[in-house]
Amino acid sequence: MTDVLDELYATLQARKNADAQDSYVASLYRGGLDKILKKVGEEATETVIAAKSGDRAALVHELADLWFHSLVLMAHKDVPLAELTDELARRRGRSGLDEKAERPAEGRPRTSRSK
Amino acid sequence: MTDVLDELYATLQARKNADAQDSYVASLYRGGLDKILKKVGEEATETVIAAKSGDRAALVHELADLWFHSLVLMAHKDVPLAELTDELARRRGRSGLDEKAERPAEGRPRTSRSK
Amino acid sequence: MTDVLDELYATLQARKNADAQDSYVASLYRGGLDKILKKVGEEATETVIAAKSGDRAALVHELADLWFHSLVLMAHKDVPLAELTDELARRRGRSGLDEKAERPAEGRPRTSRSK
Amino acid sequence: MTDVLDELYATLQARKNADAQDSYVASLYRGGLDKILKKVGEEATETVIAAKSGDRAALVHELADLWFHSLVLMAHKDVPLAELTDELARRRGRSGLDEKAERPAEGRPRTSRSK
Repeated sequence: MTDVLDELYATLQARKNADAQDSYVASLYRGGLDKILKKVGEEATETVIAAKSGDRAALVHELADLWFHSLVLMAHKDVPLAELTDELARRRGRSGLDEKAERPAEGRPRTSRSK
Repeated sequence: MTDVLDELYATLQARKNADAQDSYVASLYRGGLDKILKKVGEEATETVIAAKSGDRAALVHELADLWFHSLVLMAHKDVPLAELTDELARRRGRSGLDEKAERPAEGRPRTSRSK
Repeated sequence: MTDVLDELYATLQARKNADAQDSYVASLYRGGLDKILKKVGEEATETVIAAKSGDRAALVHELADLWFHSLVLMAHKDVPLAELTDELARRRGRSGLDEKAERPAEGRPRTSRSK
Repeated sequence: MTDVLDELYATLQARKNADAQDSYVASLYRGGLDKILKKVGEEATETVIAAKSGDRAALVHELADLWFHSLVLMAHKDVPLAELTDELARRRGRSGLDEKAERPAEGRPRTSRSK
């Protein structure tokens, strides 16, 4: 299902070299790094507010905004999506997460592990 | 490549019902919504700092932290990853984003529309 | 010099019951808690960006915005400014700060203290 | 009442040149700008969480943390408190703020002006 992210990232990258002056994304690129970062901060705050409000639809909306602007930031800085997912894959090998990595989470005997 | 996200999300969901007391993720769930949200806010700030520092490795690291804790939040609130990606897929049809994409995602003919 | 804060807080409190529909502050009160909190989060992010940019004038501007919206939040929640300053006064009694309170920092013998 | 802020700022400034290695504030200065900014972002998020929780005591606590770390940032960047309050004083002349204040701060006659 997350091909959506790959496609969205490719679209955002393509937009960087487009000459469109009128889209929201074009306005972000024109605004430069500070404008994009301001949006990342804003959407994080709005995610917190939506979650605390217990408004599920708003939460999904704000998380999508947060990830969307994260992808714009990555496109702006030429960080491929694969670099982010590689880093996340590494997270599974830390913090006790690794025990669940290779196979489904349920029904496996627990083995000792280091923290 | 983003199967990583699906797998990570499944792992995080499974951890909710695990009895582990000693992992970092378990400590987040134990801390509840406020603790998870505090981390989302923290990682957003650290993403901004890393981006402004021009430190590419740190930026990837902080973005991964931001998305990781977003996934923990989604697991905590039982929001499936598909709901987020569906919302992101909808983003491509707004804000003039897709009108400039080299290829529409689903191969359907593009029609003009107002913003 | 910080009478400015007292006066500004009093002004913000007075605005709450005013019937003006057209000022920026009135629009914040009308927007309610979420709108005010969104601004607090935004201004914190902009403070970080300005500080990292090394732009002193922008830093002062953003810090003023951050404190301004903090004061709007306090007025909205009926938290007197004195409650905040009392709490800050207590801070001086923690974290090793108190030893420096009454007199200049330099040239005094250090005595043992708990953290 | 806000002499507290002047005193706290002076204390924080004095701490910069102190040789203490063990206080919380000393650890912030040692951590440098990024560490201080990270705390500003953190406390802003915690302010939002406390306000949404409707926990008045927590709100005062988090706002005090936010202002405390703002003052540390100002001391670190050698921005006098007066510069911040001067900027805030200017805010009263904008956004229709003072037009509804019961009394002008300095007792001078009010003249009309555009927003």
